[in-house]
Amino acid sequence: MQNKLLKQNEVGVFALGGLGEVGKNMYCVEYQDELVIIDSGILFPDDHLLGIDYVIPDYTYLVENQEKIKALIITHGHEDHIGGIPYLLRQVKIPKIYASGLAIGLIKNKMEQNRGVRYNLIEYQEFEKIVLGKLSISFFRTNHSIPDSFGIVVHTPEGVIVHTGDFKFDFTPTGPDADYQKIAQLGRKGVLLLLSDSTNAELAAFTKSEQLVSENIKDIFTKIEGRAIVATFASNIHRVQQIVEASIATKRKIAIFGRSMLRTVDVGTDMGYIKAPPGTFIDSNRINKYNAHQITIICTGSQGEPLAALSRIAAGTHRQIKIQQGDTVIFSSSPIPGNFASVSKTINQLFRRGANVIINSPLSDVHTSGHGGQEELKLMLKLIKPKYFMPIHGEYRMLKIHSNIGIMTGVKKGNEFVFDNGGVLAVTRKSARYAGKVQAGSIYIDGKGIGDIGNIVIRDRKLLSEDGLLSAIVTIDKTNLQVLGKPAIISRGFIYMREHEELTKGMSSLVSETIQKKIISMKKVNITVLKKDITKLLNEYIYSRTERSPMIMPVIMTVN
Amino acid sequence: MQNKLLKQNEVGVFALGGLGEVGKNMYCVEYQDELVIIDSGILFPDDHLLGIDYVIPDYTYLVENQEKIKALIITHGHEDHIGGIPYLLRQVKIPKIYASGLAIGLIKNKMEQNRGVRYNLIEYQEFEKIVLGKLSISFFRTNHSIPDSFGIVVHTPEGVIVHTGDFKFDFTPTGPDADYQKIAQLGRKGVLLLLSDSTNAELAAFTKSEQLVSENIKDIFTKIEGRAIVATFASNIHRVQQIVEASIATKRKIAIFGRSMLRTVDVGTDMGYIKAPPGTFIDSNRINKYNAHQITIICTGSQGEPLAALSRIAAGTHRQIKIQQGDTVIFSSSPIPGNFASVSKTINQLFRRGANVIINSPLSDVHTSGHGGQEELKLMLKLIKPKYFMPIHGEYRMLKIHSNIGIMTGVKKGNEFVFDNGGVLAVTRKSARYAGKVQAGSIYIDGKGIGDIGNIVIRDRKLLSEDGLLSAIVTIDKTNLQVLGKPAIISRGFIYMREHEELTKGMSSLVSETIQKKIISMKKVNITVLKKDITKLLNEYIYSRTERSPMIMPVIMTVN
Repeated sequence: MQNKLLKQNEVGVFALGGLGEVGKNMYCVEYQDELVIIDSGILFPDDHLLGIDYVIPDYTYLVENQEKIKALIITHGHEDHIGGIPYLLRQVKIPKIYASGLAIGLIKNKMEQNRGVRYNLIEYQEFEKIVLGKLSISFFRTNHSIPDSFGIVVHTPEGVIVHTGDFKFDFTPTGPDADYQKIAQLGRKGVLLLLSDSTNAELAAFTKSEQLVSENIKDIFTKIEGRAIVATFASNIHRVQQIVEASIATKRKIAIFGRSMLRTVDVGTDMGYIKAPPGTFIDSNRINKYNAHQITIICTGSQGEPLAALSRIAAGTHRQIKIQQGDTVIFSSSPIPGNFASVSKTINQLFRRGANVIINSPLSDVHTSGHGGQEELKLMLKLIKPKYFMPIHGEYRMLKIHSNIGIMTGVKKGNEFVFDNGGVLAVTRKSARYAGKVQAGSIYIDGKGIGDIGNIVIRDRKLLSEDGLLSAIVTIDKTNLQVLGKPAIISRGFIYMREHEELTKGMSSLVSETIQKKIISMKKVNITVLKKDITKLLNEYIYSRTERSPMIMPVIMTVN
Repeated sequence: MQNKLLKQNEVGVFALGGLGEVGKNMYCVEYQDELVIIDSGILFPDDHLLGIDYVIPDYTYLVENQEKIKALIITHGHEDHIGGIPYLLRQVKIPKIYASGLAIGLIKNKMEQNRGVRYNLIEYQEFEKIVLGKLSISFFRTNHSIPDSFGIVVHTPEGVIVHTGDFKFDFTPTGPDADYQKIAQLGRKGVLLLLSDSTNAELAAFTKSEQLVSENIKDIFTKIEGRAIVATFASNIHRVQQIVEASIATKRKIAIFGRSMLRTVDVGTDMGYIKAPPGTFIDSNRINKYNAHQITIICTGSQGEPLAALSRIAAGTHRQIKIQQGDTVIFSSSPIPGNFASVSKTINQLFRRGANVIINSPLSDVHTSGHGGQEELKLMLKLIKPKYFMPIHGEYRMLKIHSNIGIMTGVKKGNEFVFDNGGVLAVTRKSARYAGKVQAGSIYIDGKGIGDIGNIVIRDRKLLSEDGLLSAIVTIDKTNLQVLGKPAIISRGFIYMREHEELTKGMSSLVSETIQKKIISMKKVNITVLKKDITKLLNEYIYSRTERSPMIMPVIMTVN
């Protein structure tokens, strides 16, 4: 059962997702016949993965080592940490899933949409220690942009491994404090290996506190003469509470728009994260019963998602909300790089409809990140004082910069490890080494299909998106070696063919004549060869006339 | 000849491109039987215009008012101001094109690639006044990210109209000063209407000086132990000069990579913008004859363009340059929003190959914008003191914010005009009003085609990019009302069909059976109806099984 890459006493640490990317986080700690998984996320692909909904890790290694798996431990409830659970469970039996607080609710919700998949979800308590066998697990609270975010401590016979989860340090947070004492205590006792969040390793800063954001939102609310419309991530429950407090302070009633935001407020109120006197929230139908300055609208759409509430408000297609003079829209968020264009479009539309728009900037400070900048990464390293260090959760450059920060703050040079997904760190109390690779990769999910779309399909979509497709359909009489009728030329996404009759006719004749000659010269009609000929012929014909290269799809129908 | 939208004494001012967008700048001033055009640019489309190379304005209004056109005046040599000239000249006769300094060279270069198109290019001098008829033109020098950038003054019988061109104010520029005295003098004498650059209207700042960038680059160069590799826009000749100066100061020889950068250095040296002692530049083949710390490489690729020098260096496919330990790459640029992903990829690759990478940030300041922030826009408004104000060169929100800045600095409320392309401002010495619209729009250029791609083709490409295409080809015997053989099912960019034989067979049988029934029930075979049936049938069949919606392309071949 021993992993062949590891020696008997070595602990194996590796990622199946999360290194060289921001998303699909999944980290594994393996010791002899035991394996613990930390997080099971998805990745939202950027534009180059055309039409792909999500990406999940390749779970092959877990399938093959099924019997070793003791538990899946969840750090917090963001999709890049829990979104893969239903896919994982369809392929791998996970005896126990441990999660805490809000993550429990979010996972249950997710599994309700995946009925038939069985799972065993257990809530862990902050001060608990869970013994799984030779490995055991404990936790420490951190600050992040979703409530109940925890760092994970894996106690192994060789020493303590700390996984920070996603974190920042906020000395004046909206929710509870990070557990500084517990983190420092780990460092005092000695940590063998630290895996730490690299998302903001490029930012030479200490993340602004949520308190500053709270105050700024309150401040802005006092100056807004009309309705205050605020968009933020639905999962950022603390931010929603800040907006609620600003509304109470400025005597505004609050209406919620967007399905996920409604769920957030429900869950947040139930769990006590969102606190408001009775009557603070009003039904969305009643917003017009109040004066504009008495209304706050909290909604989804901070990333310009086409179907979200704010995008529909901006487009003028929202059933209940029309922008009116005096409305101020606040984006309490920052656009993810891939969403710049859609956010920008939404802002332009809002301005056109007469709204004032406030986005996060050094002047407004209506948003702050959930991930620590360089100063917080240094603080974590100073508190934990790890012997070995593996930056996680980031693109390569972030990991690399974070590894330098590690050395700067006391990690011995050579004890830092920047790996790719699948790369195994073999660690004992005295040594750490690269031990080779386990299988790791990306599986694309499009609609119902899991992994049925590979790089060829993506490449085809890319080609189709650039110059479209042109099909030539030729019917051949195999017996009499004759092209029957005129080949049909059809295109999509190429040019407007009705306006290019001449081009179409030219192609049809060219194909007809060339193929006719070719089949006569053939002893036996070879369809593959004919298709290649048509493709080459049309490629050249089209490029020389249009400088475009649509995908050519030759079709040969045969009649005997 | 009088524009019907205008009264006899009204001056018409409108944009054919540049309002509600950053790109394809083209502004017109029309008075009675005279029309002056300012700039003729292209727009580089963002990702949603799949496969489109550039966008140019719809020139219809100019075609129809050909005989009024007195001149095209160019503010400066950036593509969004001169890139449309060859397309314009193919449709419209322009008696005179006025440009100055570097723009002259760049336009000539462009026209060499468009042989056969005739043009009359005249160099204007900074202190000249050009009388075109009732309208005349003068100029004032500004600061921008390309040498020889000018503001344009159109003198009309009703008053003076000032068009700033692209500008910032830099009190310690790399090139010559802006002409503060001339700008202020215009304000003193009285300006009827100001059209001013809105690109950075959202930035509450005064743009950092080029001198700061110069000093920082020099400073960084002294600390680089290996080669200094700097990428920037080829047209930013002043920046290239800064890099040259930093190289001389640190005793580095300079090699240039990338075709457009080579041209920049040639032109810049010829025109005296780039100054270096003999022997400073070395042949690209000779870089390995020097120690690493004696070498600077200036190259293209600051936007992650796939074929540019830096991208090939990062990918490890550059013939002459392999990244070596100690190399430091500086991005003296900022990524255009649509290029975040490609720049990010390039940086990750460079880190992987062992380079150190410095990007522009508040800590490094290795780049500064060519467009003024809010404080500079205010300074321009204060110097010009216009009666009427029309923000130009920007997306809607930038124009809107700029119009507020106008009011804040003294433009009377109601005298500011935020228009779309085509919207005509009719202005006299005493009045200004919206007078209606002239034809304006976007023409897409893809390969050789100008305007042969419309929104249908773009929409098709979008659909193709998301779920690919599936074609069903059915052969019908029209006489015997019979489906011949099995319909062929072919796809591209959908799923990997070889792995989905069952799905394919199911579709083929379904189409065959349904169409067979249908044609028997028809009095006369109606191909259009049959195609619609196949599309509907397959859409439902595929979506229910895969949750995907590839584009369906039904083909019916008939045999009599």
